[in-house]
Amino acid sequence: MMMMTLTTPVTQNNLTVLALHPTHATLLDQTALPATVQYVEIHTPQAMAEAIQTMIVRGAPAIGIAGAFGIVLSARIALKATDSTEAFHQHILADAQLLRKSRPTAVNLMWAVDRMLAYLATLLIAETPLAEIVEKLATEALAIHEEDLQANYAMGRFGAELLPENARIHTHCNAGALATAGHGTALGVVREAFAQGKCSMVYADETRPRLQGGKLTTWELVQAGIPVTLVCDGMSGHMMQKGMVDAVIVGADRIASNGDAANKIGTYNLALAAKAHGVPFYVAAPSSTFDFSLASGQEIPIEEREADEVLGLDGNRYAPEGVRVYNPGFDVTPAHCIAGIITEKGVIFPPFLENLKTLLG
Amino acid sequence: MMMMTLTTPVTQNNLTVLALHPTHATLLDQTALPATVQYVEIHTPQAMAEAIQTMIVRGAPAIGIAGAFGIVLSARIALKATDSTEAFHQHILADAQLLRKSRPTAVNLMWAVDRMLAYLATLLIAETPLAEIVEKLATEALAIHEEDLQANYAMGRFGAELLPENARIHTHCNAGALATAGHGTALGVVREAFAQGKCSMVYADETRPRLQGGKLTTWELVQAGIPVTLVCDGMSGHMMQKGMVDAVIVGADRIASNGDAANKIGTYNLALAAKAHGVPFYVAAPSSTFDFSLASGQEIPIEEREADEVLGLDGNRYAPEGVRVYNPGFDVTPAHCIAGIITEKGVIFPPFLENLKTLLG
Repeated sequence: MMMMTLTTPVTQNNLTVLALHPTHATLLDQTALPATVQYVEIHTPQAMAEAIQTMIVRGAPAIGIAGAFGIVLSARIALKATDSTEAFHQHILADAQLLRKSRPTAVNLMWAVDRMLAYLATLLIAETPLAEIVEKLATEALAIHEEDLQANYAMGRFGAELLPENARIHTHCNAGALATAGHGTALGVVREAFAQGKCSMVYADETRPRLQGGKLTTWELVQAGIPVTLVCDGMSGHMMQKGMVDAVIVGADRIASNGDAANKIGTYNLALAAKAHGVPFYVAAPSSTFDFSLASGQEIPIEEREADEVLGLDGNRYAPEGVRVYNPGFDVTPAHCIAGIITEKGVIFPPFLENLKTLLG
Repeated sequence: MMMMTLTTPVTQNNLTVLALHPTHATLLDQTALPATVQYVEIHTPQAMAEAIQTMIVRGAPAIGIAGAFGIVLSARIALKATDSTEAFHQHILADAQLLRKSRPTAVNLMWAVDRMLAYLATLLIAETPLAEIVEKLATEALAIHEEDLQANYAMGRFGAELLPENARIHTHCNAGALATAGHGTALGVVREAFAQGKCSMVYADETRPRLQGGKLTTWELVQAGIPVTLVCDGMSGHMMQKGMVDAVIVGADRIASNGDAANKIGTYNLALAAKAHGVPFYVAAPSSTFDFSLASGQEIPIEEREADEVLGLDGNRYAPEGVRVYNPGFDVTPAHCIAGIITEKGVIFPPFLENLKTLLG
């Protein structure tokens, strides 16, 4: 991986989270924000898998796009390595396995990789020349990127309709431009509501242990000129008790058929606080986040991450020796806590099982 | 204030949180733990108020004792400054005001200062010589210290009876030896349960922003040889959903007549998770924590602290410029979330209003 540090600050208008170039992909390095704006050049699917694993790129829709870009990089390398269609296919399938395994919880990654593989299979069946296949895979990956951006604009419009005037919106982790092709899912709704004059404050949970809320959501909203207040993850119950919050909007990494939604660890505690105080809790996620193979959220695999993330902050350990750590990366908010799921096709209300099928077919 | 760094590590057996000496008081510096074990010498009530405010000493019972020690320091200084009974009294009353205001939420501070002032008044009415008053105030302050220790042992015994075998106990902040004269309130129950072979694991919320759970509870339990697992504040809902927790035990900073209990920010979110999953949520607090002048927890003043605590960790800022902060130090867990309040006189079960009066009368 190569690092490129920008000399000019990135503003909202020219923020690019992921880009595909003729020889490589670039990722905005989210582990360096908000202190440093730098891009990482990714030349191989192996480097892409590592970037996903180490959270240089993170956010369910963004890692889906990153996975698709990884398949393109794989195809380009395979084209140079072999003339055999079979070897070309096997090369890409092996890299696809690596990419799929880089993070287990967000299904968008598997969805995007599988979409690329399915398209590859149709091109191979049609006996498309390998060089042309590589071009077409790049076009498909860029289509996934563009569709995600358009889905976010649509979610923004649908979601904003749900909000009252002067809404004070609580969110967790980062489901913003940085987690997607741009605009964001939960923060896409915030952006649209703010543009309509309907959002007066965003409360951002800092989101321990990786602080995506404190580092990324705050940075992104400050850039956009949207008022944002940073709070610790344990404050939401108190704030709702004090009547400070009108709605919660979060993203999702995987949604089961019954509406149970996996998202960054801490989301479920926020949902419980919202439920206890009658504050509507919305999930904003593109349809690529749904996993209809799962009956309920209990089946969603939950990634466990390194102890170091909890023992300290940014590599500075604060906890004493001799302590154990439990560090699940995600939790599952049961459908009964969710007032509505905002998708690019519209808002799905309970009962989710029936209404999901109607809207998403 | 003077710093004394110990050359030998403090073990559980010789841990002294607060001590009163002929010329000064010493406090174990809790802002330096777990990295460094050092004691701070306190010679004036002003220095004591500052130590309370900056959390060199923290925990409701401990700051009560610190307040009582502060009155003794005040009386000693007054004795040197004046022969006038009136001036002596006014000097102490002024310092008492300062001590009372050093932190607003924990009522034990006001309780202990007021107990010292009431005793002072009786001694003055009895025309006790001023030098003798100073001696008697020191004896009273040491009695408060000793009573707190004995109360913790009693709470430990009452609380341990509530727990199942092999209990996995979730706690928040530090309600341990470090928050009291010794042994601890919530962690006093843990210590007793562990001694009886009934506690198999303690889950310690790290307790942002000041990390008392991650720094103090973990350190204290590692020292005691009790298994402890550090988790982030947003993980409790997920853990209870997975059936990992048998009981929650926390301390309290002030309990209203109806049983509503103020404690470190984040406690209420933990209580909501416990309630949603049928996990019993216990508060362990000495009777000095009750404020019968308040009908409900809504009347408990909630301290707001500096933005810096939330913007970073240990003075290392991570959040971007331009973000606002909300930093309440405490929250109120409503009585309906509390399965029982463990006091030194026994366990109080709902309905609290009646049962509190019966037990504490």
